[in-house]
Amino acid sequence: MRVHHRGRSRHYRTVAFDARRNEVRLIEQRLLPHAFKVVATPDYRATAAAIRDMVVRGAGAIGATAAYGLAQGARAFRGRGMAAFTRHVERVCRVLRDARPTAVDPVNAMNQVRARMAAGATVAEQQTLALEAAAAFADEDVAHCEAIGRHGAPLIREGMRVLTHCNAGWLAFVDVGSATAPLYAAQTAGRRFHVFCDETRPRCQGAGLTAWELAQQGIAHDVIADNAAGHLMQRGEIDLVIVGADRVLGRTGEVANKIGTYTKAVLAAHHRIPFYVAIPLSTIDWTLRRGAEIPIEERDGAEVLGAWGRARGAAVRQYVRIANPTSTARNPGFDVTPARLITGLITPAGIFKPRELWRRRRELGNPA
Amino acid sequence: MRVHHRGRSRHYRTVAFDARRNEVRLIEQRLLPHAFKVVATPDYRATAAAIRDMVVRGAGAIGATAAYGLAQGARAFRGRGMAAFTRHVERVCRVLRDARPTAVDPVNAMNQVRARMAAGATVAEQQTLALEAAAAFADEDVAHCEAIGRHGAPLIREGMRVLTHCNAGWLAFVDVGSATAPLYAAQTAGRRFHVFCDETRPRCQGAGLTAWELAQQGIAHDVIADNAAGHLMQRGEIDLVIVGADRVLGRTGEVANKIGTYTKAVLAAHHRIPFYVAIPLSTIDWTLRRGAEIPIEERDGAEVLGAWGRARGAAVRQYVRIANPTSTARNPGFDVTPARLITGLITPAGIFKPRELWRRRRELGNPA
Repeated sequence: MRVHHRGRSRHYRTVAFDARRNEVRLIEQRLLPHAFKVVATPDYRATAAAIRDMVVRGAGAIGATAAYGLAQGARAFRGRGMAAFTRHVERVCRVLRDARPTAVDPVNAMNQVRARMAAGATVAEQQTLALEAAAAFADEDVAHCEAIGRHGAPLIREGMRVLTHCNAGWLAFVDVGSATAPLYAAQTAGRRFHVFCDETRPRCQGAGLTAWELAQQGIAHDVIADNAAGHLMQRGEIDLVIVGADRVLGRTGEVANKIGTYTKAVLAAHHRIPFYVAIPLSTIDWTLRRGAEIPIEERDGAEVLGAWGRARGAAVRQYVRIANPTSTARNPGFDVTPARLITGLITPAGIFKPRELWRRRRELGNPA
Repeated sequence: MRVHHRGRSRHYRTVAFDARRNEVRLIEQRLLPHAFKVVATPDYRATAAAIRDMVVRGAGAIGATAAYGLAQGARAFRGRGMAAFTRHVERVCRVLRDARPTAVDPVNAMNQVRARMAAGATVAEQQTLALEAAAAFADEDVAHCEAIGRHGAPLIREGMRVLTHCNAGWLAFVDVGSATAPLYAAQTAGRRFHVFCDETRPRCQGAGLTAWELAQQGIAHDVIADNAAGHLMQRGEIDLVIVGADRVLGRTGEVANKIGTYTKAVLAAHHRIPFYVAIPLSTIDWTLRRGAEIPIEERDGAEVLGAWGRARGAAVRQYVRIANPTSTARNPGFDVTPARLITGLITPAGIFKPRELWRRRRELGNPA
């Protein structure tokens, strides 16, 4: 998407590749929303570190970063012979995978790249195929998000007020985003609307990242405390909710997403406000049988007990303690929303009821 | 309540009076939870400034502060004659009232003091009566909270997990608190239980003040992001919700309280978890006909766009910007919860259904 930076507006992807320098280029998301910077990782270990240290986050974005990181590592091979090359590639994959061990996207992305590499007879051919496959993976990620936008845009009618939660925006993908894709498509279609960005405590991705994205695109929006959504719904000030997802169960239609999503779904159902979840097909988990089986990560309590922000005049963000210093916190990172609270899933293949997924599993790419 | 301070445990009230020095003594709440300090205001103008600048906050606490401030001002009169004294007292009341113009408690408290003063024939007698009346007001505030505790304590059974929102604790009253009173009474009765403190963005009174209170009293608790309450309810980890209120409509049973209260009430009803509101009778508004008539203060967006916290090694709190710097915020300070979502109102006169208030208006002190 376009970013206004140093006085000019330019198109950026969250994840890109410089083939000449063999560098992965990433938007340094830890500096946002206070500063915009693109960093380049000189080798695959630096790329893995960028995934690990959250320079880049979001399912699609870390998938593409791992795909490019694999190509980067493969292209940097300086040894001799296919056997050594294969061992090298396996090491590269391991390092990239271990950078975010619970995430499935880097593994899926690298499997896709390796499958394509296998068609190459020589090291040089495999190196070429690796980069082609990584670029194809990134382009497909964008194409999927654009398709989500095409299907979702008609939901956003002139003058609507739309609530979002967390960041399933273009910063979480290679470009365009999932939950934001219908917004950007509706804007391109000339419609005006207003977005409420849930702050999304404790990590504040809504206030930091989604609000930054919408400001860059010139979409009217307000940040709200997570506490305010119910009140605004009660007063008739929200017409539609769109969120992303970390995982959607193909068998049940249950949605695992950032903590607080379930609360917004309960509120939306209580007020009869449509609640949509925008996802690429890769987010669908066809194996788990029940949402209760989804492991809910209990994250560091320090996230809840404080916040990262920038003091007046300071150059960078710092952590400040908000809560009582002798108190502890519970910090579940995600929650699970049942199918009955979800109006529809906006996918690159169209909009479906959550319960339809299993019936349509063949066309939606269930590999089983 | 007891506070551990400089190596010893002592009993403090939120608001007290030093008759010899003619000073109001206040816990400096803007330093909490990072530092505990009692400040003394040397004259009624300083007392008004303490109300205005939020040294002291909370309905009962600012009522008692205004009552003591009026006594303080009356006792400092150095002129001659009842006419001059009366003009002086009127000026004192005006200054104290204007310190928090939308609050009703200081006005009610000062009216109570002035009614009692009127029985005095001389300036000296009225000065004595003013202090007696202010002290009686403060003691009654404590007695009301203790009665809330007696009625509410049986709701908290051994091993329960209780959710609270914002701070309706002893820091918001002269002592004991409203929503916290049943907790302290249950603790005194020897029961063990666990409290989840909603952080309560944007001002984080739950993370800062309620968590500090509970830690001082040795009550097991965890701070949670406002986003996490729904998830914990869904997983069966919350048995009971108790909150305070800024205003309860006597005619309809609707409850105006800190933003986010309505969301927790919707969630509690969805999960069939009892939802109680603890209030002194002075919180009941017998005049308004509908909750929609309650003015909802739209507060400064900066509260949502950042937070106050203490950086590592820093002596004091500072404001840090969390949100995108070019974004704006909506910041409704309160919301209104309908009677049907409220299991009961815990009052000094007993526990009532919200719809019972109007029928019982005579015994509950409806002045009309």
